[in-house]
Amino acid sequence: MALIVQKYGGSSVADADSIKRVAKRIAEAKRAGDDVVVVVSAMGDTTDELIDLAQQVTPLPPQREMDILLTAGERISMSLLAMAISNLGVEAQSFTGQQAGVITDDVHGKARIIDVTPSRIQAAVDSGAVAIVAGFQGVTQRTNDVTTLGRGGSDTTAVALAAGLGADVCEIYTDVDGVFTADPRIVPSARKIDRISYDEMLEMAASGAKVLMLRCVEYARRYQVPVHVRSSFSTRTGTLVTDEPAPAGTTAGSADSAAAEGAAPMEQPIIAGVAHDRSEAKITIVDVPDVPGKAARIFEVVAGSGVNLDMIVQNVSVASTGRTDISFTLPASDGAAATAALTQHQPDIGFTSLQYDDTIGKLSLIGAGMKSHPGVSAKLFAALSDAGINIEMISTSEIRISVVTRADQLDEAVRAVHTAFDLDSADEQAVVYGGTGR
Amino acid sequence: MALIVQKYGGSSVADADSIKRVAKRIAEAKRAGDDVVVVVSAMGDTTDELIDLAQQVTPLPPQREMDILLTAGERISMSLLAMAISNLGVEAQSFTGQQAGVITDDVHGKARIIDVTPSRIQAAVDSGAVAIVAGFQGVTQRTNDVTTLGRGGSDTTAVALAAGLGADVCEIYTDVDGVFTADPRIVPSARKIDRISYDEMLEMAASGAKVLMLRCVEYARRYQVPVHVRSSFSTRTGTLVTDEPAPAGTTAGSADSAAAEGAAPMEQPIIAGVAHDRSEAKITIVDVPDVPGKAARIFEVVAGSGVNLDMIVQNVSVASTGRTDISFTLPASDGAAATAALTQHQPDIGFTSLQYDDTIGKLSLIGAGMKSHPGVSAKLFAALSDAGINIEMISTSEIRISVVTRADQLDEAVRAVHTAFDLDSADEQAVVYGGTGR
Repeated sequence: MALIVQKYGGSSVADADSIKRVAKRIAEAKRAGDDVVVVVSAMGDTTDELIDLAQQVTPLPPQREMDILLTAGERISMSLLAMAISNLGVEAQSFTGQQAGVITDDVHGKARIIDVTPSRIQAAVDSGAVAIVAGFQGVTQRTNDVTTLGRGGSDTTAVALAAGLGADVCEIYTDVDGVFTADPRIVPSARKIDRISYDEMLEMAASGAKVLMLRCVEYARRYQVPVHVRSSFSTRTGTLVTDEPAPAGTTAGSADSAAAEGAAPMEQPIIAGVAHDRSEAKITIVDVPDVPGKAARIFEVVAGSGVNLDMIVQNVSVASTGRTDISFTLPASDGAAATAALTQHQPDIGFTSLQYDDTIGKLSLIGAGMKSHPGVSAKLFAALSDAGINIEMISTSEIRISVVTRADQLDEAVRAVHTAFDLDSADEQAVVYGGTGR
Repeated sequence: MALIVQKYGGSSVADADSIKRVAKRIAEAKRAGDDVVVVVSAMGDTTDELIDLAQQVTPLPPQREMDILLTAGERISMSLLAMAISNLGVEAQSFTGQQAGVITDDVHGKARIIDVTPSRIQAAVDSGAVAIVAGFQGVTQRTNDVTTLGRGGSDTTAVALAAGLGADVCEIYTDVDGVFTADPRIVPSARKIDRISYDEMLEMAASGAKVLMLRCVEYARRYQVPVHVRSSFSTRTGTLVTDEPAPAGTTAGSADSAAAEGAAPMEQPIIAGVAHDRSEAKITIVDVPDVPGKAARIFEVVAGSGVNLDMIVQNVSVASTGRTDISFTLPASDGAAATAALTQHQPDIGFTSLQYDDTIGKLSLIGAGMKSHPGVSAKLFAALSDAGINIEMISTSEIRISVVTRADQLDEAVRAVHTAFDLDSADEQAVVYGGTGR
């Protein structure tokens, strides 16, 4: 008998019929002999409707009140789901984030979980009931105020609960079959990844793969919670995020059928997948005096405006002028803030002009195996060159290479790299690849 | 500087515009120098929509989950109201029933308040903020589970909070100007009552006046909380429920202008008002053996089916047969349960037949002054007789006389009695008289 934490997103509980379908699935898991704890998001469009109501009332809602408002969404979905499960003859009780012991800091709107004390959930499970827990929400320790965890919050709730309960697995149900070697909307031959390490999944999430949020993977890695990303619309096995080696006799990682032939099942594949990100922009600061401290000053100014930089490139200084250009990428949504901060400090930084470009795309090749396989970057650059795609920036980590291209060449780049690294499947997947919302 | 608890019902916060209007009113009260605590119901139709959702999921929702579901409604209205007040530059914070310290028993769906410990509300008020509290909800002491208080729950929350905070007054905002001498939809010349005692208001509520729920008045009487029932659509003074005598120089009770002329302002009027109730039915048990214990047995059976009786009449026994008829009234909604229970026990009670009649109406004349004024019942019966209305049952308390008539004669009866006791106003009120929902 296992203890399973299951998380269902808003699209899985969008209406009464969806809730009944999910309830059936949960009741089956319970009847099969497992203990089940369920984390649920708000129904479909509820959050958007509540935000719309708030904006009708005030242009600047206080964040504490916004959190109280939005958490009404999970209150509705969790109680309805508990009712639907009870209706199938399986006992179920719903619990708020507070009742489930999800303690957070007091940063309303994007609170971080600081502790999980799920004694009530454990008691409900021990009594034989299915426990339904509101995702996305917690409570502050000091003031007992309601907080929300921000984007991807429900996934994080699920992983944190799984860690707190010592669950055997945390199943994240979504509208796709798992994590793919690339976005199937761009690469129809992308393959579902059977097994992926926390580090690789972290890099995938940080590089634009939307199926799991970064913070959820970070949490899972820290507490070594196995995460099973799978579809709520099928019973197929999805993608298992874990550092445990695959049991002997099964195929490992993304290497299925043809690719795995001849390879030992335990061996890591070189490449896990290709991620892409269209949400970044590039700022180039032209003619910066090439003297010590100038680059530091620039990034100090940008950080001071609350913006997180991604990739940074500094050109070789032109000797005759003693000046250089510095480029960096950042979330396009932070573009206005960064540009304003830099322009304000133009006199003391001493650059001549600033270029803002939001027509870039970022491609990332991720794989733990590239650590021990030389020549991965050469193969990547050759594939892009063969496809006629210009590389504007490069950054690397131990298990990732990212390049910036023109946005309108990004899809073509992803397909070329996917093929070059033998990731294409024999048959195309019929799947829609999308985000998981909260 | 006074401490005022204000309660706004669902119709007062039905949409964003209504919420902004109510926010303006609250901000004005705060700016006028008073401390303000607000109790709010769910927006307009929210509760009905949530009930509808539950019914789409299961025919028999567990009551614990139903309470979690329904309390989402106040969560939405209270946070939106706090936002709208903040937007006017007045600090406001919203609190759940739990955060406000509303402790209840664990009877989900119709919990009773057993304690109120509003330390957080007091702290918010002390810090200069307006505190918005979710009506209709509380939390169990032992399990920390969410409960709802049932019909009229928000009014009760407001009165209980006012008692717990030692507030100077509890203002119940509704869609009518106050408590009237009769339902203005039936008696257009009905007058607003300026001042009424707890006992009279209790009898009015118990006799069908819907503007305040019985339990809320009971709570107010027990803790001597002055309740001001008034309209959220005007700034007019409404009806003050209190046992304090009116200050000298003001008109007391329902006696305004003409009626009060010549009367001392401190004197109680004889009659407060005429209430009516169309929601009852009458059961007549025919040919009950007139031996000791039979009546007791009947009421034992009815009570055992969970039904509350109202009026009871036993005819004089017919000597030749040794049998009698027993009639009683009860909420028509309990008719089926009571009829089934009695029919099941027909053999041991020994009656010959049972008549069920839901076409009755009940008229109640209420006034603390009737205690010291003989002849009130004679005048009542004469007024009904003159109007050609037959009386089927009578019951009395110290400050109330109730009669049962045919349902289709009830309006006519109310008008006749209202006129007979000089309650008619010189000019007709343009007001819609309605319930307050939660």
